[in-house]
Amino acid sequence: MTSTGTPVGTPIDLNADLGEGFGRWHLTDDEQLLSVVTSANVACGFHAGDPSTMRRVCDLAAERGVRIGAQVSYRDLAGFGRRAMDVPSDELAAEVAYQIGALGVFARAAGARVAYVKPHGALYNRIVHDEEQARAVVDGVRLADATLPVLGLPGSRFLDVAAKAGLPVVTEAFADRAYTDEGTLVPRGREGAVITRSDDVVERSLGLARSGVVASHSGRDIAVRARSLCLHGDTPGAVDLARRVRARLEEAGVRVEAFV
Amino acid sequence: MTSTGTPVGTPIDLNADLGEGFGRWHLTDDEQLLSVVTSANVACGFHAGDPSTMRRVCDLAAERGVRIGAQVSYRDLAGFGRRAMDVPSDELAAEVAYQIGALGVFARAAGARVAYVKPHGALYNRIVHDEEQARAVVDGVRLADATLPVLGLPGSRFLDVAAKAGLPVVTEAFADRAYTDEGTLVPRGREGAVITRSDDVVERSLGLARSGVVASHSGRDIAVRARSLCLHGDTPGAVDLARRVRARLEEAGVRVEAFV
Amino acid sequence: MTSTGTPVGTPIDLNADLGEGFGRWHLTDDEQLLSVVTSANVACGFHAGDPSTMRRVCDLAAERGVRIGAQVSYRDLAGFGRRAMDVPSDELAAEVAYQIGALGVFARAAGARVAYVKPHGALYNRIVHDEEQARAVVDGVRLADATLPVLGLPGSRFLDVAAKAGLPVVTEAFADRAYTDEGTLVPRGREGAVITRSDDVVERSLGLARSGVVASHSGRDIAVRARSLCLHGDTPGAVDLARRVRARLEEAGVRVEAFV
Amino acid sequence: MTSTGTPVGTPIDLNADLGEGFGRWHLTDDEQLLSVVTSANVACGFHAGDPSTMRRVCDLAAERGVRIGAQVSYRDLAGFGRRAMDVPSDELAAEVAYQIGALGVFARAAGARVAYVKPHGALYNRIVHDEEQARAVVDGVRLADATLPVLGLPGSRFLDVAAKAGLPVVTEAFADRAYTDEGTLVPRGREGAVITRSDDVVERSLGLARSGVVASHSGRDIAVRARSLCLHGDTPGAVDLARRVRARLEEAGVRVEAFV
Repeated sequence: MTSTGTPVGTPIDLNADLGEGFGRWHLTDDEQLLSVVTSANVACGFHAGDPSTMRRVCDLAAERGVRIGAQVSYRDLAGFGRRAMDVPSDELAAEVAYQIGALGVFARAAGARVAYVKPHGALYNRIVHDEEQARAVVDGVRLADATLPVLGLPGSRFLDVAAKAGLPVVTEAFADRAYTDEGTLVPRGREGAVITRSDDVVERSLGLARSGVVASHSGRDIAVRARSLCLHGDTPGAVDLARRVRARLEEAGVRVEAFV
Repeated sequence: MTSTGTPVGTPIDLNADLGEGFGRWHLTDDEQLLSVVTSANVACGFHAGDPSTMRRVCDLAAERGVRIGAQVSYRDLAGFGRRAMDVPSDELAAEVAYQIGALGVFARAAGARVAYVKPHGALYNRIVHDEEQARAVVDGVRLADATLPVLGLPGSRFLDVAAKAGLPVVTEAFADRAYTDEGTLVPRGREGAVITRSDDVVERSLGLARSGVVASHSGRDIAVRARSLCLHGDTPGAVDLARRVRARLEEAGVRVEAFV
Repeated sequence: MTSTGTPVGTPIDLNADLGEGFGRWHLTDDEQLLSVVTSANVACGFHAGDPSTMRRVCDLAAERGVRIGAQVSYRDLAGFGRRAMDVPSDELAAEVAYQIGALGVFARAAGARVAYVKPHGALYNRIVHDEEQARAVVDGVRLADATLPVLGLPGSRFLDVAAKAGLPVVTEAFADRAYTDEGTLVPRGREGAVITRSDDVVERSLGLARSGVVASHSGRDIAVRARSLCLHGDTPGAVDLARRVRARLEEAGVRVEAFV
Repeated sequence: MTSTGTPVGTPIDLNADLGEGFGRWHLTDDEQLLSVVTSANVACGFHAGDPSTMRRVCDLAAERGVRIGAQVSYRDLAGFGRRAMDVPSDELAAEVAYQIGALGVFARAAGARVAYVKPHGALYNRIVHDEEQARAVVDGVRLADATLPVLGLPGSRFLDVAAKAGLPVVTEAFADRAYTDEGTLVPRGREGAVITRSDDVVERSLGLARSGVVASHSGRDIAVRARSLCLHGDTPGAVDLARRVRARLEEAGVRVEAFV
């Protein structure tokens, strides 16, 4: 997906996946990440996220003014939501709504609310292309709240279907992923698909946030429209890198601000 | 628990457990029962109740004006919520809130709301006596909505703790269970604990609803205060018996009406 | 897949899915079906089948000389194993082996053993065509026991991969499903895909068992090689139909006999 | 439980819980611990332990000559098996057998076998006192293999019931737990219940292994009979401490050797 560059002065949101432990298991450093991001994609129990963790993350997020998003997933604890599944549309819609509802209780108890929805893992990837499941996710979001923004990949079927259904759509970019000349992500597994040098990630973040321009895999400058940058929270050094990205953006005069 | 009789003219609510299938499996005849009861205790996914079933039951209940209650449970699909569990209080509270939140989304989508909470199975039985878990369930209900009525056994620690915490409490009685002279249930497993003759169940329903008086196990008339009668939906003939109870009550001039 | 007809005098096996309840939920009439079939595909806990049910079905099967097969599935209780999943090969192989191992303990405790493996639902359908998952299932079977026969669709990638890996392969046919002229199943959802008249099912069973010949969807006689007939156990009237099929086969002089 | 001291020259086994991750989540440093212990209590999927992890741990254990034990648990992923549950005896027995069977397939594939059973977490603690559940666990072990040794707390109902049922019983001690004058564990939660200084743990390990004598909470020398020492693998520094314990034992001439 190509697009015109983000106008100078547009603020950028920083989102990350949080609360991705389950019971005894922990994954993300929720507390530290919540001091960096402006939007928290909170796991809702289907790929990760037990109720106690959901509650704690919502409390911390609300305290710090971080927006709470429902990170909805296939029902797949064993595969961490990374196994694409052929779920019938009505079941998928209901499963999405269920997760949003469950998170809502903790968001409201913390004095906040579920402010947006972002699909997770295999579901996120599938609805880039799969119109039927995209539609089911949109139906699930609308069941829960027909005014809820959704966060996704520019050019995805998901955002397209959501927009047509009247949901506010928000685009995101990945500073640690390579883009093709056409503005799509280079698939994981291909050489160079993931940007590993942290200096590069920091500079690409700035490019994406300030001008909506980033170098493609082949070295061309391409436009990637995104109101939010996705930071990864489950790798070693993730928190440090997230802090560096935010510091660099602020130092360069970019406003770091949630989209809702 | 003894109490003064229900005043003449007080309406009676009829509640039953609904939506207790899971995926491919079905248990309760939801459609038929929803034409009899005034309050539906809807399974929320922890002992039974997949999201699609929850949605369908909420839709049908709302259509018929039946109140929607969250039937919250221990996390125990394999044991249908009938295995008492030592769940730490903060986890139990969060699990209860999670279930209420999840159901809420379907209730609201149907144009209704979660109108009350009733614990299920082993959790119901445990918090008759276990103050710590009773408190955790009450905390979970309050997390979700501090004005939500709870439905339970008169004299239980649960209702006591709930009342002290400011939640509206509603009592229920069982027309198909024997009571001791003290007004407590004769434990399942003891001889005569369950009333099996349907004529008896119908007449006891009337006694409980009209005068709050029923014959104890030993034959004494005792007072059992209850604003709701619990009908069982998962036995053969359950729907027919429920219909007979309702017909008998109405024929005798008892108002059958939800408590909220 | 076309093939030469089954030679006259070859015995036929009757297999059915059993033990497909879970905890409080029941689906198949295990006891009745075990008096009809010669091979029981026992659910192993991933789409259905709690340990107590597995134990009971193994005990009954062993008592009646019915062969015990491991009916392995994707990990999907909520979808009853009917949601195709992209499971990485090494994980799928391990999940298959896990299920076979778990069932083995009950088979051996009953004085029998796991005699074969049959994939369930979406996994069964997927490995008709998906070589990678077919290979993973075969790897899982071999992890458990490299001499274990597998039961599947003639012409499937699954049986092909299994045969090349040295596993004994057994073919099955469906008397209640329409076949194309090429001998493949008419996909569910297409008109006429499922044969609903029980008289037809009985007669097709006889054709398949005695001569390996059945009328295709278009009315041509086609050859369908199968050592086993799959009977469905989860529909109303299933037990009666199964009994009629067996009676008809025996009356016509066909030997009804397990394949192993 | 008091007992006579372990005779000089008796070898000591070192056991630890391994494979306690699930899917995306990791907990124990399986690879490192397998270079220290002689017996690996492998999680079997009910509180932790996905099939792929079970396979990998079995392969590594077999390679290093470490014995493979089935660490059986209540069905409780959300609570990591730390929530005591009232499971009916027949269900608990079947669940225990299921887990042993599932692990067996990976042990055998690795050229080894399940060599013993050790209950986990809340189940371990419950059957110290609860005769009914102790009996159910023993029944489950016997369903799987009536010659399988069980590992547990000296003086527990579990070992008593197991011994009476003909199972070989093996006792274990905890070098990082305080003991009462009567030789029972000081309950977690009480002050001083857990020994935190690693030097103390090392020296107590030596005392327990060499002479079966350790200082009680009140400072008296007491006898604790144990053929195995349990090392904890899920705390920071766990691997280092385990290594120091083993080195100290070997340096002091104690034979470190599995019990089976």
